[in-house]
Amino acid sequence: MKVAALAGGVGGAKLVDGLAQALSADDLTVVVNTGDDFTHYGLQICPDLDTVCYALAGLANPETGWGRAGESWNVLENLAQLGGPDWFRLGDRDLATHLERTRRLAAGDRLSRITADFCAAWGIGCKVLPMSDDPVPTIVCTEEGELSFQEYFVARKCEPRITGFRFEGAAKARPAAGLLEALAQAEAIVLCPSNPWVSIDPILNVPGVWDALLGRVVIAVSPIIAGQAVKGPAAKMYRELGIQPTAYAVAKHYRGLMSGFVLDTLDTDLTSDMAWPYRVTDTIMNDRGDRLRLAEVVLEFAAGLRGSGDH
Amino acid sequence: MKVAALAGGVGGAKLVDGLAQALSADDLTVVVNTGDDFTHYGLQICPDLDTVCYALAGLANPETGWGRAGESWNVLENLAQLGGPDWFRLGDRDLATHLERTRRLAAGDRLSRITADFCAAWGIGCKVLPMSDDPVPTIVCTEEGELSFQEYFVARKCEPRITGFRFEGAAKARPAAGLLEALAQAEAIVLCPSNPWVSIDPILNVPGVWDALLGRVVIAVSPIIAGQAVKGPAAKMYRELGIQPTAYAVAKHYRGLMSGFVLDTLDTDLTSDMAWPYRVTDTIMNDRGDRLRLAEVVLEFAAGLRGSGDH
Repeated sequence: MKVAALAGGVGGAKLVDGLAQALSADDLTVVVNTGDDFTHYGLQICPDLDTVCYALAGLANPETGWGRAGESWNVLENLAQLGGPDWFRLGDRDLATHLERTRRLAAGDRLSRITADFCAAWGIGCKVLPMSDDPVPTIVCTEEGELSFQEYFVARKCEPRITGFRFEGAAKARPAAGLLEALAQAEAIVLCPSNPWVSIDPILNVPGVWDALLGRVVIAVSPIIAGQAVKGPAAKMYRELGIQPTAYAVAKHYRGLMSGFVLDTLDTDLTSDMAWPYRVTDTIMNDRGDRLRLAEVVLEFAAGLRGSGDH
Repeated sequence: MKVAALAGGVGGAKLVDGLAQALSADDLTVVVNTGDDFTHYGLQICPDLDTVCYALAGLANPETGWGRAGESWNVLENLAQLGGPDWFRLGDRDLATHLERTRRLAAGDRLSRITADFCAAWGIGCKVLPMSDDPVPTIVCTEEGELSFQEYFVARKCEPRITGFRFEGAAKARPAAGLLEALAQAEAIVLCPSNPWVSIDPILNVPGVWDALLGRVVIAVSPIIAGQAVKGPAAKMYRELGIQPTAYAVAKHYRGLMSGFVLDTLDTDLTSDMAWPYRVTDTIMNDRGDRLRLAEVVLEFAAGLRGSGDH
């Protein structure tokens, strides 16, 4: 089955790794949020793209879910000694990714081409695409004013109260080369358990993406379990926007787009309200085995929906 | 005695460290060549400035004379894995210097101010000045055409035959703030044992510097010993420019400017031709003690010339 997965950071990267274990490399295309991308020390940093690639390459830090395994911090320690900002944790190995990406972007290469070459160097078989080669920075609207995503997320630790989001430049952005084709060819599209507001919505706002998903088998996996996000500010964002953070709220978030919803066994009580096809399963992915198992549930669910024509 | 030292890379940095040992911090100003500066991975790299600062801070790699002691290469290894250029040896600790300097330059700070702050962070007491806050890149003219300095020096390993040098932008460059004042106040000026063509000449070509040295006590220390450069391409450059590489040739190089010349005991036979006051001493600096000893010879020589009025 040909699958396209839309993913943000840590949770998305884990399910993507499960899908990569379950599918042959030719059958999986991963579309990654680049709304979190930012410039730091003059370097172009793509946190979600790197988290997904490191997970797929087996290079990710298993403790944190982001960054590299066996990472060292010699550069950052010396930056701090010189008085440089150290709020963004730049590991030595990770820094090489940013440096080479920045060098190639400055030389005129597109992000999607650079990502493909990095994937080849890291031995990643499936296709990984940034949602766009154009910058579409997510702006977080808060009661303290607008903040860039990393300013909100890392520097301010998600403290300011959210009032909304803007995807700057989205209207004019073009989907990365091959993205719409991959969506058109996919027999199932997976919205990974990433933050709906700031990981999946930015991708859906790239012109052409939403339309490409209409009437297709689209499976969303809830990033909210028992009212909590496994990681990150998704639940806090729902609350501040006046919505009770539940798997049900996530399902509603994707209404009109989604043909099936996967939620955690801890949320079985919510299924009575579900107006959509759903699957209940363990969605917490503690190890690579969990990732594969969840991916298999998602794929089986998608195959069933395809067979039933119920989408 | 107030001293200003003009220095390039490794040899110059060693004598500068000796002078810093011999003098109180207030009495020493070091003026460093920035003609080798270049941009790599978008980073502003100042090899001579860093070599001098690392030597003064006790951070230098004692084996190589450049780079940092206890350096690690995690970034460079990962850059190479991604297909990035690795001809310039970027160490992890060293990279922090380039990153923070680049960040501050982009924020509008001047190189001299950044250097002063780095020196403070590294515990360096004396004043270290780049020759200019304006870029004055050394262009190496060769039989294969013009090359940027690092292209010639690192990428091409000094192989192309030299025909001359250009100091691009020198005519319009301003000396760094405080540089001419430091030269005016200095009771002795030391031309360190650095490459005359590409380390000292770039400094002398910054407008105002040559004039500030005229009629002063200027001591040059030969970087050529027994017809060889201790390190680097100085001897090869002399040969390719049709000049026999000797300490005598170095002395002639600085004629009209220099009031005293320090050459190695291995070159005692050249003293019969010396038309200038000179001192013969061991000039090879294998350890910090050697650096101090040579510095003391230079300072004593300068004090004698001052006393005699023979300059």
